[in-house]
Amino acid sequence: MIIVMEKGAAIDQINDVVARVRELGLGAHLSSGEERTIIGVVGSPLPPTLDELLEIHAGVERVVRITKKFKLSGWDFHPQKTRIQVRDVTIGGPELTIIAGPCSVESEEQTVATAKAVKAAGATILRGGAYKPRTSPYEFRGLGRRGLEILALARDETGLPIITEVMTPADILDVGEFTDIFQIGARNCQNYLLLEEVGKAGKPVMLKRGLSMQLEEWLLAAEYVISQGNPDVILCERGIRTFEPATRNTLDVSAVPVIQGLSHLPVFVDPSHAAGKRALVPALSLAGIAAGADGLMIEVHPSPDHAMSDGAQSLTFAEFESLMPRIAKVAGAVGRDLRVPERVAAL
Amino acid sequence: MIIVMEKGAAIDQINDVVARVRELGLGAHLSSGEERTIIGVVGSPLPPTLDELLEIHAGVERVVRITKKFKLSGWDFHPQKTRIQVRDVTIGGPELTIIAGPCSVESEEQTVATAKAVKAAGATILRGGAYKPRTSPYEFRGLGRRGLEILALARDETGLPIITEVMTPADILDVGEFTDIFQIGARNCQNYLLLEEVGKAGKPVMLKRGLSMQLEEWLLAAEYVISQGNPDVILCERGIRTFEPATRNTLDVSAVPVIQGLSHLPVFVDPSHAAGKRALVPALSLAGIAAGADGLMIEVHPSPDHAMSDGAQSLTFAEFESLMPRIAKVAGAVGRDLRVPERVAAL
Amino acid sequence: MIIVMEKGAAIDQINDVVARVRELGLGAHLSSGEERTIIGVVGSPLPPTLDELLEIHAGVERVVRITKKFKLSGWDFHPQKTRIQVRDVTIGGPELTIIAGPCSVESEEQTVATAKAVKAAGATILRGGAYKPRTSPYEFRGLGRRGLEILALARDETGLPIITEVMTPADILDVGEFTDIFQIGARNCQNYLLLEEVGKAGKPVMLKRGLSMQLEEWLLAAEYVISQGNPDVILCERGIRTFEPATRNTLDVSAVPVIQGLSHLPVFVDPSHAAGKRALVPALSLAGIAAGADGLMIEVHPSPDHAMSDGAQSLTFAEFESLMPRIAKVAGAVGRDLRVPERVAAL
Amino acid sequence: MIIVMEKGAAIDQINDVVARVRELGLGAHLSSGEERTIIGVVGSPLPPTLDELLEIHAGVERVVRITKKFKLSGWDFHPQKTRIQVRDVTIGGPELTIIAGPCSVESEEQTVATAKAVKAAGATILRGGAYKPRTSPYEFRGLGRRGLEILALARDETGLPIITEVMTPADILDVGEFTDIFQIGARNCQNYLLLEEVGKAGKPVMLKRGLSMQLEEWLLAAEYVISQGNPDVILCERGIRTFEPATRNTLDVSAVPVIQGLSHLPVFVDPSHAAGKRALVPALSLAGIAAGADGLMIEVHPSPDHAMSDGAQSLTFAEFESLMPRIAKVAGAVGRDLRVPERVAAL
Repeated sequence: MIIVMEKGAAIDQINDVVARVRELGLGAHLSSGEERTIIGVVGSPLPPTLDELLEIHAGVERVVRITKKFKLSGWDFHPQKTRIQVRDVTIGGPELTIIAGPCSVESEEQTVATAKAVKAAGATILRGGAYKPRTSPYEFRGLGRRGLEILALARDETGLPIITEVMTPADILDVGEFTDIFQIGARNCQNYLLLEEVGKAGKPVMLKRGLSMQLEEWLLAAEYVISQGNPDVILCERGIRTFEPATRNTLDVSAVPVIQGLSHLPVFVDPSHAAGKRALVPALSLAGIAAGADGLMIEVHPSPDHAMSDGAQSLTFAEFESLMPRIAKVAGAVGRDLRVPERVAAL
Repeated sequence: MIIVMEKGAAIDQINDVVARVRELGLGAHLSSGEERTIIGVVGSPLPPTLDELLEIHAGVERVVRITKKFKLSGWDFHPQKTRIQVRDVTIGGPELTIIAGPCSVESEEQTVATAKAVKAAGATILRGGAYKPRTSPYEFRGLGRRGLEILALARDETGLPIITEVMTPADILDVGEFTDIFQIGARNCQNYLLLEEVGKAGKPVMLKRGLSMQLEEWLLAAEYVISQGNPDVILCERGIRTFEPATRNTLDVSAVPVIQGLSHLPVFVDPSHAAGKRALVPALSLAGIAAGADGLMIEVHPSPDHAMSDGAQSLTFAEFESLMPRIAKVAGAVGRDLRVPERVAAL
Repeated sequence: MIIVMEKGAAIDQINDVVARVRELGLGAHLSSGEERTIIGVVGSPLPPTLDELLEIHAGVERVVRITKKFKLSGWDFHPQKTRIQVRDVTIGGPELTIIAGPCSVESEEQTVATAKAVKAAGATILRGGAYKPRTSPYEFRGLGRRGLEILALARDETGLPIITEVMTPADILDVGEFTDIFQIGARNCQNYLLLEEVGKAGKPVMLKRGLSMQLEEWLLAAEYVISQGNPDVILCERGIRTFEPATRNTLDVSAVPVIQGLSHLPVFVDPSHAAGKRALVPALSLAGIAAGADGLMIEVHPSPDHAMSDGAQSLTFAEFESLMPRIAKVAGAVGRDLRVPERVAAL
Repeated sequence: MIIVMEKGAAIDQINDVVARVRELGLGAHLSSGEERTIIGVVGSPLPPTLDELLEIHAGVERVVRITKKFKLSGWDFHPQKTRIQVRDVTIGGPELTIIAGPCSVESEEQTVATAKAVKAAGATILRGGAYKPRTSPYEFRGLGRRGLEILALARDETGLPIITEVMTPADILDVGEFTDIFQIGARNCQNYLLLEEVGKAGKPVMLKRGLSMQLEEWLLAAEYVISQGNPDVILCERGIRTFEPATRNTLDVSAVPVIQGLSHLPVFVDPSHAAGKRALVPALSLAGIAAGADGLMIEVHPSPDHAMSDGAQSLTFAEFESLMPRIAKVAGAVGRDLRVPERVAAL
């Protein structure tokens, strides 16, 4: 870490900073230029908030952190790409993972039918919301525990592992009784106590990116989970909030290669929430895979016109089925693998 | 609500939509132009998510909501400005409320000293964090229950009511045992279960605006609290996330008059988190008051250079004391009142 | 267009609005509900700014435009995808167009070497800046007319058509003497007089998206060019400005399918300016193609370490050469074509 | 400037960077830590783009600029606040300057009436657009030279100096023949050739902030003007583009104190374009003054309902007149001065 003192900082101010650094058990190395003094801080490990502690000292102009704030999610700590095993499915390997299913679990019939349809098209994990965060308290908020039971039933019928959202620590036990992967939604991405509690629950966690979350903050949120002893974290880019009204959110497709440069964690793309419109889902799916994503999470519904939530962005069975072979082709073009049933590949 | 059908929508599509509207117990009024059909929906009350339910129908181009989504926080529902009584302090009346105190409760000495100093300068409520949300799991996260006890002690010493953050439903009982006002932080602004639980706790709630929260979403978050029977919600603008790096966040000062046009709830400004830099706090404080805010929430620390969090944006006692009479003058200029001790007013 | 009057709008206000509509030669069709009156405006064509003219009338709550503001760039006006012929190259057809070259023309040697290298790798148009917009007046601002001459020379040597930026109307003649395509930079995207003047110059125009330009505004900027009689406009997405610091800009890859849904104009992606970092250029290139872009514009430099501008985001010859076959594979996977020399394809 | 080399940078890479620094006539000072080498660059003045030139070298992790990029607009270069004399009016002194007038000059009657009304209420400069940038080519684009003549006539009638926008270098002579202050609009804020040309025209220039312009970029744009020998630049904050739809733009009120900390140039606020809605203009005006702005620029129209542009955000004469004494009170509260006619002050 480098501390740049202000032009004309007083000797006392410099000494104060040096004293503080040494108080923290670290070394300080002074370099006095014509105009300014620069203090190099050495020692290992540096306290993670050292920059914050030092930059508030009088006379300090700027503290330049050289090492990253996150650790457990970074390559330094874990030089192999993380692979996560969820029943038969390996996430983060050469084969892509397609998660599909309805926004909300609405009924047994709707969920099982969707599970069968997405499996037949090549999806390997079923999604579905039982506890739904909604912007307004007056909207449909999910079937709760009954929704979890329906998801489990759909898993029994199809063999697909399931992923569903948990919104609050009190529900972790219940949700964990059923789900294979915990999903943390975009609005809860900095609900730190939830992150820690879910980190203790012993199952993989998918962490959606918050609407205005910087990539480094996202990795720090992942640290909350991993630091509880759970290394199985999947990141999912789902669009950020910008000034552009044509899409519900703006898919930050660059997040995929940036995160992969910084972290060993698998990165997914959710084209449905990014687009907000069914017609854009195929293009964003293909873009995500081409950028290197390890998988996709796509909303599919038997009758989007009658969906209780997110109908506008859900694909029909037929749309999903015709998208899958297109994804498989792009996967092949970028050196990844996606096995699609022969019947579907021939579409 | 008005449903605009696509150019060339089929008769069947139009009939389907009309049938759906009637299924919901509402009236549909058709108006067929040369190019398009428009369907007016009448009935009262309209289901809050009606637009979402209708816009996904085949043939629908757009649904235009005419009434607002929020209700309890709007003027229609409650035509008097909300006033909230917190011990001796009335929030939302002609007199401004200045909340001040440290970011984190660090020790009894630090907290009591700050309470006394801010009271002496004219503040009427003490803030202080016992449970701290931090971007990184490696940062100081507050003293917890011990922090609450210290706050209560500072209240005993000064008579100032206290406000402190609650981060998760499991802490509501503990925090509620001590605090006078619950604070919901920006990162938890759409943690809906927390909002509902705190809505049941029988004490006023300050709801900070999320980093990328639209104003209508903020009022809907307030509805989560109010719909539990707790009308005492205070909104606090604390800066939104934009592309500008010169400030920690961008204070959206327009939020003050916009919210006041839509809602009867008191609106505060937090210049400290918006600015992120001590030197900007006075200008943003004065701007907030001039824009019509009902109060401010300002971070003050006995020695910001040694603060365990947010030191860079905390005022010293002297800075806070010299700011108060300036706030009082602007308050007077915009027809509001702020009583500052005579000694301070003379500064 | 639909005019929604306020709840309780006075009869006089309604009559005023109707009178104004008729004054403009249009029809007004009243529909009075229990609470509100709605006025449908009919007639064709509607004045493009009609909504703006009407929404300011007393008693009007909202004006809902049903048709889009842009015309010439939309599908309604021109139902075939636009194809633009630039010497031997067809832009907007099944074959992708890869534009490559240095940010700035620095010397004959640098430019000709780059032209040869990018041609050998499969690029079909050469880019290079002779007039450079720079954030600071103290930065390198291009070789001017000498730069144009060098570009023409590189064209002579390689046969590649050239594209270069024009920054001000006074330079159009000069630049037009040499260039095959005019480029309008992101900072000039709403420099309307430049757009009109370049629209008269009789050569294709590439219009980069502004840093905070909404997609509808972009199409309206294209209208400025097209309305001068020049239909040959290429749109180029190059990243928008958001809160995320990890990339120079945020590539809005959704812009590709959204624009293609609204407009017949070819859409390109510039991964170099979006990323700002060489290492991210391949992933963003592939994502752009997978999303359906008609081409890419990529910065390439013989020695990026010594580039006079944008070195950090420029590819070396070797990096570009190894990227091209990857682009070709993704192009094939999404049903597009990119012919790459055999030697390169085998890399 | 400090160059931080990558962990494990090769000796050759370090030597290359040092050689480059010396090639540029500067000194390099090596400091080798256990893990990294840091190179301090000394010499004065440093080339303004030195960081860009150095950060692209192999082995360089980061270049940390310590001094600011702008010079002429900064306090170091000009330690007194800039005061600009425009006929009888002094901008940047203790007295606030209120500029008011219509968005567009529509007719002599409209303009002269507005000039008289705003003068009677205490405004000291008249604004009015003769050349109008419009998002769509189909909108009203101003009266051109006839508009300038009308503005001059209104100046003759009232004695108010005038400010009007110039959009392209070719119009500078024409506009300069009439105007007292050149206005550069938000969309032209990085039209660098226009900035330079207007810098040569010998009259003060108001530079509006671009919709997504960072504050440092704004000061660099001002450098383009000042570097032509014209120190009389006024900056005008008019709202930035964010995700919030409730206002046309988001007024970044913090820009006022931030700029004043960095620069000696006067800073204005334009509440009309920020708000986009008449009802919000008073609150934003007062907030701007409270934050320390040197003046305001407010749109006023005799009949906003019939304005040819920006009617929704224009004040009526009565609204402007009742706002002025409120501004004067806040000005007084923050130690600034605004003289309002006695009749108006008594309102």
